[in-house]
Amino acid sequence: MNTYLNRQKKVSSLLAREDISLLVLCDREGMRNPSIRYLTGQPSDSVLFIFKDGRTILLPWDINLAQIKATATEIKPYNDYGRTLAQALAKVLAEEKLPAGSRVEVPAELPYPEFMGISQGPYQFICREGGLAAAVEDMRQIKDAEELATLRKAFAITDDILDKIEAALRSGQCTETDIALLIDREARLAGAEGTGFETLAAAMGRSYNIHAFPAYTGAMMPADGLSIIDFGVKYDGYTSDVTTTITRNLNSEQEKMVSVIEGAVKVAEKLLKPGTLTTGLSGAVNDYLEKNGYLMPHNLGHGIGLYIHEKPFLRAKVDPVKLEKGMVFTIEPGVYDPKLGGVRLENDYLITENGFEKLTNSRIIRL
Amino acid sequence: MNTYLNRQKKVSSLLAREDISLLVLCDREGMRNPSIRYLTGQPSDSVLFIFKDGRTILLPWDINLAQIKATATEIKPYNDYGRTLAQALAKVLAEEKLPAGSRVEVPAELPYPEFMGISQGPYQFICREGGLAAAVEDMRQIKDAEELATLRKAFAITDDILDKIEAALRSGQCTETDIALLIDREARLAGAEGTGFETLAAAMGRSYNIHAFPAYTGAMMPADGLSIIDFGVKYDGYTSDVTTTITRNLNSEQEKMVSVIEGAVKVAEKLLKPGTLTTGLSGAVNDYLEKNGYLMPHNLGHGIGLYIHEKPFLRAKVDPVKLEKGMVFTIEPGVYDPKLGGVRLENDYLITENGFEKLTNSRIIRL
Repeated sequence: MNTYLNRQKKVSSLLAREDISLLVLCDREGMRNPSIRYLTGQPSDSVLFIFKDGRTILLPWDINLAQIKATATEIKPYNDYGRTLAQALAKVLAEEKLPAGSRVEVPAELPYPEFMGISQGPYQFICREGGLAAAVEDMRQIKDAEELATLRKAFAITDDILDKIEAALRSGQCTETDIALLIDREARLAGAEGTGFETLAAAMGRSYNIHAFPAYTGAMMPADGLSIIDFGVKYDGYTSDVTTTITRNLNSEQEKMVSVIEGAVKVAEKLLKPGTLTTGLSGAVNDYLEKNGYLMPHNLGHGIGLYIHEKPFLRAKVDPVKLEKGMVFTIEPGVYDPKLGGVRLENDYLITENGFEKLTNSRIIRL
Repeated sequence: MNTYLNRQKKVSSLLAREDISLLVLCDREGMRNPSIRYLTGQPSDSVLFIFKDGRTILLPWDINLAQIKATATEIKPYNDYGRTLAQALAKVLAEEKLPAGSRVEVPAELPYPEFMGISQGPYQFICREGGLAAAVEDMRQIKDAEELATLRKAFAITDDILDKIEAALRSGQCTETDIALLIDREARLAGAEGTGFETLAAAMGRSYNIHAFPAYTGAMMPADGLSIIDFGVKYDGYTSDVTTTITRNLNSEQEKMVSVIEGAVKVAEKLLKPGTLTTGLSGAVNDYLEKNGYLMPHNLGHGIGLYIHEKPFLRAKVDPVKLEKGMVFTIEPGVYDPKLGGVRLENDYLITENGFEKLTNSRIIRL
């Protein structure tokens, strides 16, 4: 059975369980939802209607692309449905003649005024956090065999690019922009859709920023001190996410930062197995860093997949989630100092039956 | 007086006029709002509180960046305010001790469940389309001298890159990726922050897509037929947006498509002056295209500035807006056919006292 139809069926069984007649998902500028790609294959910009009986209607902005990429019971141009969620929903409801009182769940991200505008008529409209769209995100947390196979292609390209970056930096000077474009070029040559997000390449002087602005410039690499490169490769929708730190002529304080971050990775890896709580994992790394005199100004990591930041989120104080087999996420401890620069080491991990598999080969590159 | 303080003052006078005590703006992943950059200079990821008395509080995610870039009465780390809009708002309201019954306007994009969660307490919370945040967008429609000066830098770099693309295509074969990376590299070398959006480079075979997917690949350019390159350069936050079509060995139907699009630009330019309605302008171009046997599957154009798609939107049937001096927007007629390919010609225009100024020099590149 087609993977997408299979996933759609799972979602419709969730609707049946909660007696919800229709679930509406929407992917548009300012309100991205990769769950539509997960459920239909359509890469972006569409509205998806999922009915309790298992039928689906996809209204893509680009009907040509949908005809190549998408799987749904019906695929019709968004243009024919008014090109707004409100109009499309009204038309589908009219065509489907759902009984009065039917429960219709709309995206939790729907702006308040927009929800006020659509939630008219003889239906019971539901807009809630933790609803069925969140249940689809929970499904997406556990990668199936097909998704893992796709992710492994992204990881292989990523590792190859890491080697090419190291070779380039060992053979001479280049700019942050050279590195960023090398990544983009190699990713596309290898068949990737592109990068998973805007590459960050920050030579010493800018590396103390968690996310340097602009993302890359004409600054030269390698440089004495600590430089950071953070990138991902998007293959068939699925993205990797790694960070390497480039070191040259470090002073003792910078050396200590690097070794503490390498230690933080070890602290995290010891806890990577089914059953560990994300909060406990993140807290253990924070405790280790604090004991060594550092404070991490961001979270320990996040799930990756069809979106660069997805469940599970590895946060110390909120959103506890038990690690499960099939989860794929980053571990990315980092510490930053305006004078000393920044160190971050990020790799991608899979939770297995009894432990973990490290999926990417990023490392501190010592020059 | 500082440009940003000046703009903040204008907004606070709007608050006073509507007797709103506090306006909250938010720029975050999934809910971008470049108005915060317009009002403070902070490039991204922050919450801005604007009070009726003219004071402003900026809570940036990246305090280091804010200390370099931003102007506000107070700048404090978002981290100290709980890192969610709900917590930050609650804390600011507690600190400010606004009188019970005060009117507080929050972003119109706020998700329904989130608004339900924050709109508690002795205040009157307002979440509406066409409110004060939209009034700031209206301010942003009319570019001031400083903004125009910045945009002109983006346009100059854009024109230079167009010449370099033409030279590259005249001198031999390259891939879509080569072109895309040439654009990114040249933009950054010229001091731009980067591209304004993901470059589209679609050789014949892919050019019939309005937005080709993936955006660029290893396909060769130039190719016989119609190829499209669509890009923008972001300078100090402000983006250009141009499209060129590359032609080689066209058949007569493709020739006709090209000349009709060049004709469409002329139809549009005749109407570019203060007072013209955006609907009339777009409708005139659609009529001309239809008379020639074509249907344009997208709108005629859109405003550009701190965001790639902003007011005014040039749509034939909705959102009529009278063109005014200082508006900057794209004109981008296009027609597409799965067999013949696509043609789009896009330039950026400024409405002047009596007519218009064409700001970029994109053209059909005939090889």
